[in-house]
Amino acid sequence: MAAEIVNPRSDSSGSRPSSGTTTGHEGAEEPFDPAFALHRGGKMAVQATVPVRDKDDLSLAYTPGVAKVCSAIAEKPELVHDYTWKSNVVAVVTDGTAVLGLGDIGPEASLPVMEGKAILFKQFGGVDAVPIALATTDVDEIVDTVVRLAPSFGGVNLEDISAPRCFEIERRLQERLDIPVFHDDQHGTAVVTLAALRNAARLTGRTLGDLRAVISGAGAAGVAIAKFLLEAGLGDVAVADRKGVVSRDRDDLTPVKRELAELTNKAGLSGSLESALAGADVFIGVSGGTVPEPAVASMAPDSFVFAMANPNPEVHPDIAHKYAAVVATGRSDYPNQINNVLAFPGIFAGALQVRAARITEGMKIAAADALADVVGDELSAEYVIPSPFDERVAPAVTAAVAAAARAEGVARS
Amino acid sequence: MAAEIVNPRSDSSGSRPSSGTTTGHEGAEEPFDPAFALHRGGKMAVQATVPVRDKDDLSLAYTPGVAKVCSAIAEKPELVHDYTWKSNVVAVVTDGTAVLGLGDIGPEASLPVMEGKAILFKQFGGVDAVPIALATTDVDEIVDTVVRLAPSFGGVNLEDISAPRCFEIERRLQERLDIPVFHDDQHGTAVVTLAALRNAARLTGRTLGDLRAVISGAGAAGVAIAKFLLEAGLGDVAVADRKGVVSRDRDDLTPVKRELAELTNKAGLSGSLESALAGADVFIGVSGGTVPEPAVASMAPDSFVFAMANPNPEVHPDIAHKYAAVVATGRSDYPNQINNVLAFPGIFAGALQVRAARITEGMKIAAADALADVVGDELSAEYVIPSPFDERVAPAVTAAVAAAARAEGVARS
Repeated sequence: MAAEIVNPRSDSSGSRPSSGTTTGHEGAEEPFDPAFALHRGGKMAVQATVPVRDKDDLSLAYTPGVAKVCSAIAEKPELVHDYTWKSNVVAVVTDGTAVLGLGDIGPEASLPVMEGKAILFKQFGGVDAVPIALATTDVDEIVDTVVRLAPSFGGVNLEDISAPRCFEIERRLQERLDIPVFHDDQHGTAVVTLAALRNAARLTGRTLGDLRAVISGAGAAGVAIAKFLLEAGLGDVAVADRKGVVSRDRDDLTPVKRELAELTNKAGLSGSLESALAGADVFIGVSGGTVPEPAVASMAPDSFVFAMANPNPEVHPDIAHKYAAVVATGRSDYPNQINNVLAFPGIFAGALQVRAARITEGMKIAAADALADVVGDELSAEYVIPSPFDERVAPAVTAAVAAAARAEGVARS
Repeated sequence: MAAEIVNPRSDSSGSRPSSGTTTGHEGAEEPFDPAFALHRGGKMAVQATVPVRDKDDLSLAYTPGVAKVCSAIAEKPELVHDYTWKSNVVAVVTDGTAVLGLGDIGPEASLPVMEGKAILFKQFGGVDAVPIALATTDVDEIVDTVVRLAPSFGGVNLEDISAPRCFEIERRLQERLDIPVFHDDQHGTAVVTLAALRNAARLTGRTLGDLRAVISGAGAAGVAIAKFLLEAGLGDVAVADRKGVVSRDRDDLTPVKRELAELTNKAGLSGSLESALAGADVFIGVSGGTVPEPAVASMAPDSFVFAMANPNPEVHPDIAHKYAAVVATGRSDYPNQINNVLAFPGIFAGALQVRAARITEGMKIAAADALADVVGDELSAEYVIPSPFDERVAPAVTAAVAAAARAEGVARS
């Protein structure tokens, strides 16, 4: 009989590591930290989904049976989507240059995050995912490498690649590939932010078009959120980098920020972030650092403060609550957690379900709307965005994205 | 609660598809072929090996807990082997140019074989494996791509890449990477062949050094088998390509075959395969085609015929049995199946277990010896090689390869 699947680690329903010390690297005792114990051996494995017990099994799953399947695909290439896992597997691709709050730590050190991402894809969206951390940071090399891998995957999730390189990499891959390419740090964050914002607006009797927002941070998330909110109908948005508002009158802007300055800031603001916040309806923090309290106090009545830096939000919730109608953070220990896991699993599951060639603006807006709608009648100041563990989320997002793909003509099955 | 792992396909203990027709591609009925039904949706999936049920789980498996693990690896890179699946995962890499007996069918059409390989790695060796079918056949591009992927993997199994490109690709990757790189079509076949040959020699009271072999086929397998058997102490071997013996007097040899001519054929044979077989002790077929019966009849007494072409061996077993003492084929429906699954799972499992930097000749010979030893006292003409489903095989090969790696100083843990 074939050997059982070897899986020495606890199954996914197992208990957490108990307290005490454990022998870790170099035989020395690890400082007791359950995160290290949990990570021993990694967090994922593959499994066969067909029997491999005896020679009859092998003759179907492997030679000679598999040869017929290969021949059929060689003759009719689209059959690869019926007879392989390509229709359900996503590459989680990084170069390790912008990992969490740690920055440029390189590919090996990024692997725990990429494995985490992969298991979240699977647990929340039923989407298989494989960590691909690359040994290059050169844009051309990253693009060429992913293009060469693409036959093996149904989609590409770019992760933790620093701005502004991430914009060019994503764009060039989208041009060259006919599978979805999606940088979650940009668009996942934007989708969840839009959902929270829609509900906050609804709670306070307004529409997106009534609102003026200020975003702190002109990296991957800030740029993507600004563009996406405008696409969705936001009244106005200004983005601030370290030097202040990204405004047309500045002469020190990179091409990405120059484009941003052209697209945003109808109010024509310039100068400091703090000055831009005066009378603003929405603050969105994706920069880190701290916004001085007077600036928060100077915002319009019934303001929304979405301070997403983790673990230290740009505005502490206790301070935000003194002034704002709705407060959200990136932290799981406060209400209204803006967590990308609300978006990327369902977005890819929906795109893969209909074999969408790409993830369009319409599909992302549909995802945000579906996410917002899960809250429904339970809407309150403490509940403008569902919990990541709300089982209604992924199916709703998946269905909405699939439907939007069909409506936009990018579905292929 | 987090969504259950979605696994719509039967689990690995499920029953085989039953007879009847099924709706297949384009809604038309598939010809009833259980291989197609089994392949629907692919043959593999990933799974989380840690719990992801609630926010406490997430805070260990993902942010913020994962950040500590990333920092630790950034500070001490070798920790990647303790805290990620890199220590247990192999990339199964192909360019689709030499798939089974189908030849150059391209990367998508090769995926069912690569998935099959991956599940065999897991089921037989407990080694995780990921199919990586590349959209290029350029040697430089393949090498560069695999080098860039390497941080994500503990080893590279090259598969179904045509000769002679496969030799250069393997060599260059071995030079540039510090993880094992192994072309199974070459070395897996060679290891299993050596094991069968050792036992056949033992059965007939001889040693390897007493034997002269002739190999039909100077591709990946033929070249590797010849070199490996000589390394292991075979008396003499000549290799024949379509034009006949690869001999020093030929002026039409590629560099690979020129090298082969220099290393082999102590007997100084030249001319046809058939003439070389006269008085030979061993025939090894890795070419396809058919060897005429008189040539088989002209071999020495107590000969061994290992005709590995699938499904049509170069010498049909019924004919071989008229002359040979021991007959082996690549087919599962005859005794003595030379099946690479006897080697590659345990070879990689052993190498990964001790984090060997490469798979050395000594490790491969140890694998072959361990494989041969499983047969032990049950040795007979019908049983010179274990069954692929003999549960003793993978542990024995794994242990022998790990021990050999240590002995040769290439182990790093």
